[in-house]
Amino acid sequence: MEMKEVIAEVLQKIVPTEEERAFVKGVMEELEGIAREKAEELGLEVKPYFVGSLAKDTYLAGDHDVDLFLAFPLDMPLEELREKGLGLGKEIGKTLGEYEIAYAEHPYVRAKYRSVKVDLVPCYDVKDWRDVKTAVDRSILHTKWVNANLNGKNNEVRLLKRFLKGIAAYGSEIYVRGFSGYLSEILVIKYGSFVEVLEKADFILRQKVIDPAGWVKREPEIAMKTVKREVEEDKPLVVIDPVDPRRNVAANLGWEKYGRFYFKADEFLQKPSAEFFFPEEHRKGNYLAEMRRKGTHLITLLFEVPELVDDLLFPQLEKSAKGFEKALSREGFGVLGWNAGRYGAEKAFIMLELDRVERPRVKIHPGPEFFTERGRDFYRKNERVWLVGKRLYAEKVVNEHIIGVLRGLLEKNQVALGKNLRETVKEAEILVDYVPKPLENEAYLFLSREKEGLKGHNRPL
Amino acid sequence: MEMKEVIAEVLQKIVPTEEERAFVKGVMEELEGIAREKAEELGLEVKPYFVGSLAKDTYLAGDHDVDLFLAFPLDMPLEELREKGLGLGKEIGKTLGEYEIAYAEHPYVRAKYRSVKVDLVPCYDVKDWRDVKTAVDRSILHTKWVNANLNGKNNEVRLLKRFLKGIAAYGSEIYVRGFSGYLSEILVIKYGSFVEVLEKADFILRQKVIDPAGWVKREPEIAMKTVKREVEEDKPLVVIDPVDPRRNVAANLGWEKYGRFYFKADEFLQKPSAEFFFPEEHRKGNYLAEMRRKGTHLITLLFEVPELVDDLLFPQLEKSAKGFEKALSREGFGVLGWNAGRYGAEKAFIMLELDRVERPRVKIHPGPEFFTERGRDFYRKNERVWLVGKRLYAEKVVNEHIIGVLRGLLEKNQVALGKNLRETVKEAEILVDYVPKPLENEAYLFLSREKEGLKGHNRPL
Repeated sequence: MEMKEVIAEVLQKIVPTEEERAFVKGVMEELEGIAREKAEELGLEVKPYFVGSLAKDTYLAGDHDVDLFLAFPLDMPLEELREKGLGLGKEIGKTLGEYEIAYAEHPYVRAKYRSVKVDLVPCYDVKDWRDVKTAVDRSILHTKWVNANLNGKNNEVRLLKRFLKGIAAYGSEIYVRGFSGYLSEILVIKYGSFVEVLEKADFILRQKVIDPAGWVKREPEIAMKTVKREVEEDKPLVVIDPVDPRRNVAANLGWEKYGRFYFKADEFLQKPSAEFFFPEEHRKGNYLAEMRRKGTHLITLLFEVPELVDDLLFPQLEKSAKGFEKALSREGFGVLGWNAGRYGAEKAFIMLELDRVERPRVKIHPGPEFFTERGRDFYRKNERVWLVGKRLYAEKVVNEHIIGVLRGLLEKNQVALGKNLRETVKEAEILVDYVPKPLENEAYLFLSREKEGLKGHNRPL
Repeated sequence: MEMKEVIAEVLQKIVPTEEERAFVKGVMEELEGIAREKAEELGLEVKPYFVGSLAKDTYLAGDHDVDLFLAFPLDMPLEELREKGLGLGKEIGKTLGEYEIAYAEHPYVRAKYRSVKVDLVPCYDVKDWRDVKTAVDRSILHTKWVNANLNGKNNEVRLLKRFLKGIAAYGSEIYVRGFSGYLSEILVIKYGSFVEVLEKADFILRQKVIDPAGWVKREPEIAMKTVKREVEEDKPLVVIDPVDPRRNVAANLGWEKYGRFYFKADEFLQKPSAEFFFPEEHRKGNYLAEMRRKGTHLITLLFEVPELVDDLLFPQLEKSAKGFEKALSREGFGVLGWNAGRYGAEKAFIMLELDRVERPRVKIHPGPEFFTERGRDFYRKNERVWLVGKRLYAEKVVNEHIIGVLRGLLEKNQVALGKNLRETVKEAEILVDYVPKPLENEAYLFLSREKEGLKGHNRPL
C-alpha cells in the first residue's frame, strides 16, 4: 500500500468525528460549570483548567479521559492546597456520581461522568517555571505552549501517538519508559509532521539535545546543567522542556522504547502498513510447548499486593523481579528473563525463566585471605577447606531445589524487594513449570519473547 | 608427645647413617674421578662441581640424587658450551652405564651409577652474579654460600625440608610452587632453627622482604628493583638471593603452599607429632559415592601427550584445564574444580568437576548496541531479538549436552590449550561421570578435595 493510503486509512480511525467532538465539548463545558459552582460554594479562589490531550485537541478517537486541574493561588501553603483541593474534588465528585481517591504525589479524586473518566487534580496556578511547586503544576504551561505552537498539526500528533501505541513504545509512566503525549507533540512541532519524525529517528538519537524553546540561549547556565545531568545519566534523548529549562521532557524515555521506535520507524517507511498502528493481537500459544522447545524452566511467584496504583506497584514489582534475578544468579541459577504484573484484583505475579531448577548439593564458598584473623577463623570452622591464591575456600552444603533456595533467600532477607511487597512476597505461592489458567497466555508471551521482542506482533503492554 | 621427642624420632629417620654417608662419599669421589678423566681425554678445560643437597650435606636419608655440574670457562661461547657439555656428559654417561638425554633450558645427561641418579649438567664456572649466563650457573654459588653460612645447622634444614614434604609444600618446580631446598636452607640460616622458622611463619609473611646477604645496602638500586618487581607481582615472599641481587629465591613460591606452611606450622607447634613429617597415605574412597554426595558431575578427558618432562608438560596441562574452566563457564556450566596429570606412559588426563552436564537448548546471545551498523545487522539476522538498555539480545540455539558443548568448543578453537597439546586434546576421549580403573582413586582424591585440601592426610603430590 502507498504511504498516503495507509495514513488516510489510519486517520479515519483515529480522528474524532464531529459527533465525538461535540460530545467531548459538552462534557467539558458541563464539568467546568460544576467545578466553578462548587468552588464558589466552598468560597475557594480556584481556577479550573483543562490539560492533557483533550485540552490540546490531540486525543485519539474514543480515548477521551478528562484532566481537570484545579489551580489555587501561589501564596496558598502546600498543606492547605492538598486539603482544600481534595475537599473540592470530593464535592465535584459527589455531584458527578461515583468517585474514588487516587494517590500520586498528592491524593486526588478520580470520578466518572457520562462514562468519561475525570481526574480532578489540585495544583498551583503557575504563570512561569519559577513558580512550579508540585510535579503537576507544569501541565497548565504545557497545554498553553502546545496550543500556541502546534499550528494545526493536531492530526500529525494523532498519527505519531497511535504509531507509538501500536509498536508498544507509548506511555511515560515510570514502569513503561515510553514516549509521552507531550513529547510526541514536541517532536511533531519540531520536525513538522508524523512522517518527518519517523524519517529522523536516527538523526534525533544522534542530535541528542532538542531545545525547541531556545533555552540554551535564554538561560544557558540552567539549560546546560540539565543537559549535563541527563547526558551523564545516559538518557537516549534530552528535550529541554519549552516551559521549564530544568526539565528533560524525555527523562523517562528508556533505550528499549527508543529502540522499538528506531527499528519500527524504518520498517514502516520501507513498507507502510496500517498494522503498525493497529497490530494484530499477540499470537496465542502453549507455554508448556515453548518451555520444552527451549529446555528452560518457569518459576512463578503469586502473592497478595496492597492497594497501590500501577505507578507505585509496577516499579516495586520490577525491583523485586530484578532482586530475584540477582539473588538467584549468585546462587548459580541462570535467569534468562523475568516478567511481572497484576493477577486478579488483589494479587500480583513474578515469573522467572531459569536454566534449571536443581543444583548440586554443595557450593564453593569463598572465604577471606588466609593470614587474617577472619582467615584463621574460617580455617578452624570449616572441614573441607583449601586455598586458591591467598584466598580460602570451603565446601558448603546448600539447598538443591529451587523451592528450598527461594524460601531460604526470602527467610534470610537476601532478595531486594519493593518496599510494600516485602511481607507478602515472603508468603508467596511458588509454582514450578506450571501456571494457573488465567496466566497461561502471559506465560507463553513471556517465554516466547513475544512480549518484549522487537519482531512479531507486539501488543502494547 | 613432647616437641623434643618428636624431633628426635624424626631425626632418626632423616639423618643419613654413617654407612650411607660413606657410600655417598664414595660415589661422589668416583664420579669426580671419572669426570676429570673424561674431560682430560676430550681435552676440555672443565671443572666438576657437586651442587645441591649432597654437596651441602642437607640431603635426607635415602634421598641422594647427585648433581654433578661441569663448569666451562666463561669465555666459551654458549653454543660451544652446549655441544661440548653434552658431549662430555655422554662420555661420562657411557662409562657409568645407562643414560638418557633430558631437556631443560639446555639438554643434559641423566645417568645412573650404583643405583644413584646422576645429573650431569654443563654450566659456566661463575665466580660472581655478574658472570651468570644460564639458569643453572648460580647453583655453584648457592652451594658455596650455604656451606659458608650454615654453621652446622644441617639437621635443622633436614627437619624443615621433611616437614615441608610432609605437608605437601616442598618443591620449587613451576607446577608445584612450593619451598625449594635452597629457600629452606636460607630460612634456617636466617632464623636459627627448624622450630624458629615455624614460630615465625606469620612474621616471615609480614616481613615480606628477606635480605640475608645485605644487598639492599650493597647494591641498593638493583636490590630495590628486584623487591619492587616481586611485590608488584604479589609474591608471598621476596628473598633476595645472597648470591644474586637480581633474583628472588622465593619467586616460584605460591600463596597456596605458603598457606599450607602457615597453618601446619601453627598446628605442629600447638600439637607436635611425627605425622606432619610422615603423613599417612591418603584415605581411599569411592569417587562415585563422593559424586553422589555432592550432586556434581565429573568430566574426564584422556589424550595422548608428546614426550615432555614434567616441568614442560604440567604447566601445559594446567593451562589447558584452566582453559576448559573458562570456556565452560562462558557456556553456563559451573566448574567447581579441575585436576590433571599423567595417565600411563603416553597419556594425560584432565578432570573437571561440573555443576551439571546439560543446559537449556537456547542461550541468550548478547549483541551490539542497536543504533550501530552492526546493531542493524544483528536485528536483521535474528528472529527473536530484544533490547535491554541500548544493547540488543537474541536467542541462540545451542548444544545441550556437555559432550556436544566440549566438541564444539574444541572444533572452534575456543579453549586455550597448552601449545604442545592442541592437537591431541582435540582427539580426547571424553568420559562423563566415569573414569577407568587406574584413575578411580585420583578421581576420589580430587572430588573429595583430599588432594588440595588443607586438612586431612595430604600426601605430597
